[in-house]
Amino acid sequence: MQDATLDLFARAGWKITLSSRSYVPTIDDTEIECLLIRAQEMARYVESGALDAGITGHDWVVETGAAVEELSELIYAKQRLARVRWVLAVPEASAIRGPRDLQGKVIATEVVRITQDYLARHGVQARVEFSWGATEVKVPQLADAIVEVTETGSSLRANRLRIVDTVLESATVFIMNRSAAADSWKREKAESLILMLQGAIAAASKVGLLLNVHRDDLQAVLGVLPALKKPTISALSDPDWVAINTIVEEAVVRQILPKLKAAKAQGIVEYPLNKIVL
Amino acid sequence: MQDATLDLFARAGWKITLSSRSYVPTIDDTEIECLLIRAQEMARYVESGALDAGITGHDWVVETGAAVEELSELIYAKQRLARVRWVLAVPEASAIRGPRDLQGKVIATEVVRITQDYLARHGVQARVEFSWGATEVKVPQLADAIVEVTETGSSLRANRLRIVDTVLESATVFIMNRSAAADSWKREKAESLILMLQGAIAAASKVGLLLNVHRDDLQAVLGVLPALKKPTISALSDPDWVAINTIVEEAVVRQILPKLKAAKAQGIVEYPLNKIVL
Amino acid sequence: MQDATLDLFARAGWKITLSSRSYVPTIDDTEIECLLIRAQEMARYVESGALDAGITGHDWVVETGAAVEELSELIYAKQRLARVRWVLAVPEASAIRGPRDLQGKVIATEVVRITQDYLARHGVQARVEFSWGATEVKVPQLADAIVEVTETGSSLRANRLRIVDTVLESATVFIMNRSAAADSWKREKAESLILMLQGAIAAASKVGLLLNVHRDDLQAVLGVLPALKKPTISALSDPDWVAINTIVEEAVVRQILPKLKAAKAQGIVEYPLNKIVL
Amino acid sequence: MQDATLDLFARAGWKITLSSRSYVPTIDDTEIECLLIRAQEMARYVESGALDAGITGHDWVVETGAAVEELSELIYAKQRLARVRWVLAVPEASAIRGPRDLQGKVIATEVVRITQDYLARHGVQARVEFSWGATEVKVPQLADAIVEVTETGSSLRANRLRIVDTVLESATVFIMNRSAAADSWKREKAESLILMLQGAIAAASKVGLLLNVHRDDLQAVLGVLPALKKPTISALSDPDWVAINTIVEEAVVRQILPKLKAAKAQGIVEYPLNKIVL
Amino acid sequence: MQDATLDLFARAGWKITLSSRSYVPTIDDTEIECLLIRAQEMARYVESGALDAGITGHDWVVETGAAVEELSELIYAKQRLARVRWVLAVPEASAIRGPRDLQGKVIATEVVRITQDYLARHGVQARVEFSWGATEVKVPQLADAIVEVTETGSSLRANRLRIVDTVLESATVFIMNRSAAADSWKREKAESLILMLQGAIAAASKVGLLLNVHRDDLQAVLGVLPALKKPTISALSDPDWVAINTIVEEAVVRQILPKLKAAKAQGIVEYPLNKIVL
Amino acid sequence: MQDATLDLFARAGWKITLSSRSYVPTIDDTEIECLLIRAQEMARYVESGALDAGITGHDWVVETGAAVEELSELIYAKQRLARVRWVLAVPEASAIRGPRDLQGKVIATEVVRITQDYLARHGVQARVEFSWGATEVKVPQLADAIVEVTETGSSLRANRLRIVDTVLESATVFIMNRSAAADSWKREKAESLILMLQGAIAAASKVGLLLNVHRDDLQAVLGVLPALKKPTISALSDPDWVAINTIVEEAVVRQILPKLKAAKAQGIVEYPLNKIVL
Repeated sequence: MQDATLDLFARAGWKITLSSRSYVPTIDDTEIECLLIRAQEMARYVESGALDAGITGHDWVVETGAAVEELSELIYAKQRLARVRWVLAVPEASAIRGPRDLQGKVIATEVVRITQDYLARHGVQARVEFSWGATEVKVPQLADAIVEVTETGSSLRANRLRIVDTVLESATVFIMNRSAAADSWKREKAESLILMLQGAIAAASKVGLLLNVHRDDLQAVLGVLPALKKPTISALSDPDWVAINTIVEEAVVRQILPKLKAAKAQGIVEYPLNKIVL
Repeated sequence: MQDATLDLFARAGWKITLSSRSYVPTIDDTEIECLLIRAQEMARYVESGALDAGITGHDWVVETGAAVEELSELIYAKQRLARVRWVLAVPEASAIRGPRDLQGKVIATEVVRITQDYLARHGVQARVEFSWGATEVKVPQLADAIVEVTETGSSLRANRLRIVDTVLESATVFIMNRSAAADSWKREKAESLILMLQGAIAAASKVGLLLNVHRDDLQAVLGVLPALKKPTISALSDPDWVAINTIVEEAVVRQILPKLKAAKAQGIVEYPLNKIVL
Repeated sequence: MQDATLDLFARAGWKITLSSRSYVPTIDDTEIECLLIRAQEMARYVESGALDAGITGHDWVVETGAAVEELSELIYAKQRLARVRWVLAVPEASAIRGPRDLQGKVIATEVVRITQDYLARHGVQARVEFSWGATEVKVPQLADAIVEVTETGSSLRANRLRIVDTVLESATVFIMNRSAAADSWKREKAESLILMLQGAIAAASKVGLLLNVHRDDLQAVLGVLPALKKPTISALSDPDWVAINTIVEEAVVRQILPKLKAAKAQGIVEYPLNKIVL
Repeated sequence: MQDATLDLFARAGWKITLSSRSYVPTIDDTEIECLLIRAQEMARYVESGALDAGITGHDWVVETGAAVEELSELIYAKQRLARVRWVLAVPEASAIRGPRDLQGKVIATEVVRITQDYLARHGVQARVEFSWGATEVKVPQLADAIVEVTETGSSLRANRLRIVDTVLESATVFIMNRSAAADSWKREKAESLILMLQGAIAAASKVGLLLNVHRDDLQAVLGVLPALKKPTISALSDPDWVAINTIVEEAVVRQILPKLKAAKAQGIVEYPLNKIVL
Repeated sequence: MQDATLDLFARAGWKITLSSRSYVPTIDDTEIECLLIRAQEMARYVESGALDAGITGHDWVVETGAAVEELSELIYAKQRLARVRWVLAVPEASAIRGPRDLQGKVIATEVVRITQDYLARHGVQARVEFSWGATEVKVPQLADAIVEVTETGSSLRANRLRIVDTVLESATVFIMNRSAAADSWKREKAESLILMLQGAIAAASKVGLLLNVHRDDLQAVLGVLPALKKPTISALSDPDWVAINTIVEEAVVRQILPKLKAAKAQGIVEYPLNKIVL
Repeated sequence: MQDATLDLFARAGWKITLSSRSYVPTIDDTEIECLLIRAQEMARYVESGALDAGITGHDWVVETGAAVEELSELIYAKQRLARVRWVLAVPEASAIRGPRDLQGKVIATEVVRITQDYLARHGVQARVEFSWGATEVKVPQLADAIVEVTETGSSLRANRLRIVDTVLESATVFIMNRSAAADSWKREKAESLILMLQGAIAAASKVGLLLNVHRDDLQAVLGVLPALKKPTISALSDPDWVAINTIVEEAVVRQILPKLKAAKAQGIVEYPLNKIVL
């Protein structure tokens, strides 16, 4: 998560530099001091006020029970700050089919409290063991089931585990200490940071499209463009033609570009973006 | 070739993901299933219909004699999908000066059929030995000459080999199975893919240029720009000035930029492109 | 410095290719031949005319006393061609507080002449020992003080050294042989090269901003933009709106983007640049 | 610790093979099944009987309070299974000088129970926070002191921390489940394993010395050899000479070898050992 | 196979040095010139007399049908020159249970001739396709079955393939050209090489054991030692004791060492070996 | 040279540990303090008495003109502390055939003084330029000839350079400050160090041979063994047999082992050595 976070800040406009001789990074903003702390510990230190704000997973806010404010999700799919699920998983051949089958079993997990809450919701009693890592190797020798985090499930499948249920959905969140959030200067600073982070996140999955079109073909071309945001149409020196500049999801370009060509758009150019605030 | 191909698809808009636990990559397009196959084998599997389409070298289509349709060359110079030559090469000190001197000699090569066809065209008889790789080390101990692929010849020169003749020119090609090419849906899908791949290829060697120019200097500035494609000229709020947006080969920027400045263009900006469909 | 220089030339439009089998790189410009030479030796070979021009540090021009022409500084902060200082440094606990305290001491350094000139300026006599590297380890066992290059001083601090004085400030410079500089073709070629290198350097720390704004909000939005260069304002097909395209320092985006949004700018997009000649 | 343990088993005569596709290693002994488990978790699983025996640190036996039998220490200095200390450490400039100064402070550590026991022994109350790692970066921003493991203290010094007190000494231990230890077959198997592991450990810091000596010089030579174990003296075909074969600590060879030469020993040869059972 | 072969030669006493600038290695024996050639091609070049001798797999001798003399197997388990099998494998869910089920199917393999011979032996007709590598990915999309090499089968299982039958067993072999083998000098040189290679191979899995024993315990101790080879028993200066020096398989040390100790052997030392010729 | 030196000390019995946070290594001998200094600078610091002793090349003693005592050569062929030559080299096609042809030329080298002395010995005047490295690339563009260090000449040949003459032969040497060498304690310590270093060097190219032989075959077997040092012949419990233990050059084992077998030696075992003082 560290590299993804540093990359995200860099794209947002803050350069955080790690030193091989110190664990305290430097940041090129005299209004901010920062520390690298594990996601698991962040919420607790933000709650206690040792830190004003932090980036961690929603799951760890729940697991630690920290009373902090979650200001914004930061779903940065390009760089592994994606949405994840904590799932109940068992060996492919296990008889466990649902939470009820856990009665009296041993469950290994990094999120003991989340798992206990889940069991309580289903009125089931089981032993939950804290796992320091490599949880998926603990079944079946050391545990009957695990509660483990997954994005696509492929790592679990590769270990021949079967997902039984989703225990908690989570995403990266920007959290604030409650007192700090009530301080207007700190709040505004945090909002600016989030605006830039979201601007960088938005840009990572989008691209700019430039194209020229004869006024006769304008409606046809506009019909092809997604309705995400009104495109910018500018006058050219040749009054019969206009230029269109628009922002689209990178993933749809391969669908609309052939249609744009068919609709007689000319000089179609896709260019990369750093940040977007629409 | 694998990395270059994956990179090209990524630029074209398709994300192909390799898994360390499986040789079947995933692609983010539900209409496509893909396999990673060596260039040498691709044409045969496309010919048999096991695959509808593939990307390989023209050389391997010839070598395997596969009856497939070559839809488009994909010359992606930036990432090693460049045009190549299979050449006849001999040690610097060899007496062999042309194909006629091969009579009765031993030739090592990865392309046995192409080499035999070449010998037949020159009416020469020689023994052609299949080489599994490191062909250039086979002369003079194990063979008298080799037929080897080269882009610039520098690797051959470094091995103190002399190029005698070009046997076959080749480039990366998009091939289709003949039945699949006759299926209108598959053909259209392939054409879209090629459009996007060519769009990405075109963008890789080109850049966008933005500049402002006073109307008095417009003709002088336009005279400097390459005639590749009519530039987009747009009106500015100051009616004496126009903005020009144009696409040029990256390689010529260093020549035209000093001239643009001399012609009084202002605010000249070069920006990168993802795709171009002119 | 080599990687930074090659990267800078690549961004400027010249591709220099190193070969694992030769120390003479190739460059894709038939008017240029190039050699990779250590910064320390460059000035001397440019002075003697073995080379027409070179890129080295101002410090090495001074150290070698080479009579060359310094045409332009190339401060390329993104890639380590930054401005540096040669400093006099001593162990934290040393009694040396200024140049006068060096009388009779031993100083280790890579820049013997620069150090001797510095001592002469302060009327101090001391033994200056040439150090082949790892100079900071030489105090206190082998020397009383060192003269060493530093950018931020952090490496010196990590070695528990204290900076006493700045001996020389330096930056990367483009130098020319005096006769070559008097040759108009060579001079012009050098100027073109510098124009492109500076264009690439300028672009590395800047970005493009595109935004749409209602004519009623135009003055407010323009008030937020830095006065670096007049922004390009273009007419849109909707006469009430204009589009603004401008170049700003990347480092200020995080400050002005929230203000642009507050001033009702819409569709704000930041995009990367390759080169700028304003 | 994993590599050191695998290396130790390899030297002892058991080859444990990790697979990139599975977390369950294979071992070339049909009487043993093995699992790789973190040191922190080992004692608990041995206590519960999920495992019959394990290798972990004495510290983790204490921290988890697991009721297991510690059969043997395995101090394998060559490969990082050395004796370690958990120490109370504070920033160099801290006012904390002893356990009493911790009253009301925040202590970050991976060993919460060990730290709480330590505080209780000194009648001090303080908040102990669980740290997931990088504990030394937590002072002074997030904690007033830490309890951290160290071998030589150099990492703590490098972080400018001062060691205040030793909280617990620890070493790698071979532990057994109590029921398993009472099973004679399992106990004997464990004893054999320990014998071989200790044999490999002993050999890692010792070497063999072979030398010839004239009977007249025998007492002088024997006087130089350490009294560790009676050397093996064998008859040679020349009755005036004997050969000595002995095992000595590698670290003392540099001291005794010059003395052996002075005492007229001849043909002195030092050779490496795999295992020793004296 | 290359690293294992070079390592084996190094252990046998010949240093083969690869150069980054040449594919022809140097060897420190003026009577030998050597070339690095792929295992697949070796037999053919030895057959033709371009080479006098070579090291390759028995499988490639069979596949190429080369008429060469196989002088000795070189089973070097420590370094991957192990015994291997070419097996017929199919997807886990395939209906193919034996060679008869292959009728009319497609088989992908690197060993086309071996596979065709196998089919002929079973009176089955199937299409055999040459595979350039990554053969296990070819089922089920491109082939119905594969013939692939395996040592333990684990890679096949990881690809969810089922082994149906063994097609050919193979091992590394030292081969000679028939004329060269009839030349007494070359034959003797080859025999010396093989003697040393086998000496290094034998030593790789064996160790030396030294121990002292009282004459009263000698029979008991000898009873524990494997009967591989009569141990060397030497007289000590103390006539009641003897020293035993013997060579045993490394894999059995862990079994006999506890027994030796129980039989009152003293000063037991295991030491490594370079070569053995018993 | 650093790795080779550390390795040599480790084999000799001194463990020198580098720290990533300090350039001053630690050594496990309280009587020694050590520093890592470049070979080029060592002699000067030993001469000045900043260091009592050092390991460097004889070439750098000559180049710096340092008045130090050279106690012993350390030719450690296994680990790159080999004997080397500084040679005069020119491009293959150069007209320079001997030192006389250098009159008026430019010579690039790292050893300016050695080169000037060489020129003076031949009564030739030429410009000698100090080269900071990559000297072989300096011809023909920047220099007419170079004086460069080489072990086998292969790097020079690869650069298409021709060796004209040997300027200086050199080897690694153990040097001492003259006052320190006159101090009996320091001198003795240095002699012990050299004894152990030489013991480790000798062992690196030698091995031990153990073999049993019937008394009837003893003379034949002894006739095969090199006369390097009288082998140790020990009595076995079977009076008809003796055991031989001897030290031989590893490089000759491949020659004598077949002969030993032919002479009826039995149970031949080659084992590795750590140190030898014969």
